[in-house]
Amino acid sequence: MARALSTCNGRANLFGSSTSNLLSPSSVCYRPLVVRMSREQPYWANIEADVETHLKEAIPIRHPVSVFEPMHHLAFAAPRTTAPALCIAACELVGGHRSQAMAAASAIQLMHAAASAHEQLPLTDRTRPKTKPATERKFGPNIELLTGDGIVPFGFELLADSLYSAQNNPDRVLRVMTEIARATGSQGVVDGQFREFIISQSDEEGAVDASSIEYVSRKKEGELHACAAACGAILGGGSEAEIEKLRSYGLYAGTIQGMLYGIGRNQKGVREMVENLRALALKEVESFKNREIEAISSLVEPELSFV
Amino acid sequence: MARALSTCNGRANLFGSSTSNLLSPSSVCYRPLVVRMSREQPYWANIEADVETHLKEAIPIRHPVSVFEPMHHLAFAAPRTTAPALCIAACELVGGHRSQAMAAASAIQLMHAAASAHEQLPLTDRTRPKTKPATERKFGPNIELLTGDGIVPFGFELLADSLYSAQNNPDRVLRVMTEIARATGSQGVVDGQFREFIISQSDEEGAVDASSIEYVSRKKEGELHACAAACGAILGGGSEAEIEKLRSYGLYAGTIQGMLYGIGRNQKGVREMVENLRALALKEVESFKNREIEAISSLVEPELSFV
Repeated sequence: MARALSTCNGRANLFGSSTSNLLSPSSVCYRPLVVRMSREQPYWANIEADVETHLKEAIPIRHPVSVFEPMHHLAFAAPRTTAPALCIAACELVGGHRSQAMAAASAIQLMHAAASAHEQLPLTDRTRPKTKPATERKFGPNIELLTGDGIVPFGFELLADSLYSAQNNPDRVLRVMTEIARATGSQGVVDGQFREFIISQSDEEGAVDASSIEYVSRKKEGELHACAAACGAILGGGSEAEIEKLRSYGLYAGTIQGMLYGIGRNQKGVREMVENLRALALKEVESFKNREIEAISSLVEPELSFV
Repeated sequence: MARALSTCNGRANLFGSSTSNLLSPSSVCYRPLVVRMSREQPYWANIEADVETHLKEAIPIRHPVSVFEPMHHLAFAAPRTTAPALCIAACELVGGHRSQAMAAASAIQLMHAAASAHEQLPLTDRTRPKTKPATERKFGPNIELLTGDGIVPFGFELLADSLYSAQNNPDRVLRVMTEIARATGSQGVVDGQFREFIISQSDEEGAVDASSIEYVSRKKEGELHACAAACGAILGGGSEAEIEKLRSYGLYAGTIQGMLYGIGRNQKGVREMVENLRALALKEVESFKNREIEAISSLVEPELSFV
């Protein structure tokens, strides 16, 4: 297992730097942020429904309608991500109540939706996404730009308000805000998008270095899931050790999702690498002795991941 | 005075709905977010220098350099706004220490910088800004889009961290986050940008209704300043009455800035309307008996405003 993994900032890295596994760039550029989840999993489906209900209530179509109608639409039109559900699952695993993590899960969904909307914008210095957009383009680019801009602060507003609505501890809420800001900002998702853009511009016709692909996947999906799991554990009152284990689990689980549904899904060696990550992920949660880890573990189960 | 003012949501509205004062649309579309401040005012210059120093330390050019270099650049390249300085001034007026409001002032500057960067993006469904951009375009549109996306969460991160760096009260920090999220999001600045876009699309060649212009000014500059002043007062430990008075002061002061440096500066009647707003603004702060109100009042002084 260690053979296929190198480390980056102490975290497992899917590809060794000497790997010769190169992926074609055409499958890399501007792919939509990952996502898929088996509807057959009642536990996950139930969480997803709860998050959706919460968000629909949080974003009513109100005045100004010209602003809130596209906001409502874009919040739900983004490609599905498992990160918000993982946030709830982590909260429950450490003994917290679902309501404690609901605002954080909703905020993560909103950040994902905003990033997704901006990823599709046609700008003069980049080409239109080569992959078919996963999101129906109901509004024009300017509306999607502004709506994305409005969604992000709204996510933080929801979180700040959870201090009252869910009687969350203010220190925990502020810690979660920092987590989400870092994961979705310049050191997280935005960094991944940035690298993806550079790859697309600099190496349009050539082979893309696999380590770059792994970097993009980890930044865009891995760290979002890592943040989601850590936030759930923080809000649920988990210990520092539990928070860090769940953060690592999220990193592996998210990167798996990135590898399977984003780029190079059918590339040689990907399945093996995913298996390695899966083993690492399961090792993180199996230490939760005497807890029901079946539900959260199912996120990396083969039948779920390889749909 | 009441003659020229109608109210909107309980707030003074610069234009009565029956006004016949119409402004040409060419001076409206995509104007940069307001800003100008007299360098001759030592109090404001001193605050500005402090905020700039704080931000420069908060955004070092670090790894990944490709992300942080444009972030550093765009944070300072935006047209100047008086909102961050007003945040500090409000904090000091209610007896707080400058350091308590420094993170909030910095966050407001960052939100302004991000909105400003996104306002200049060339999109396929809108024309390039007609006014000469106040910001030097050092980077391509994609970089500016992503950098703006990274700046916003970073602003919230700075705020969340002020819990520790400035020993701020967590309840106050969360309240300030909600204030900033609302003022800069879909019900504030983004709403103003949205309305501005609609005006530019629907009435390109015709006269623009003055009430729309006032709406845009109030949303884009008025509410940002209102939020800034309220946040400063919250963090400085002001009473609810003081917070609301300073919020109103900020709304008037910001709208004045919007009227003078954005649109219709030379239009007939604007100067008179600004005078009315100035009187309202001064009335809000004169009730701070036994406090030194000269400094904060100077923000709406004629020699400062009419530079």
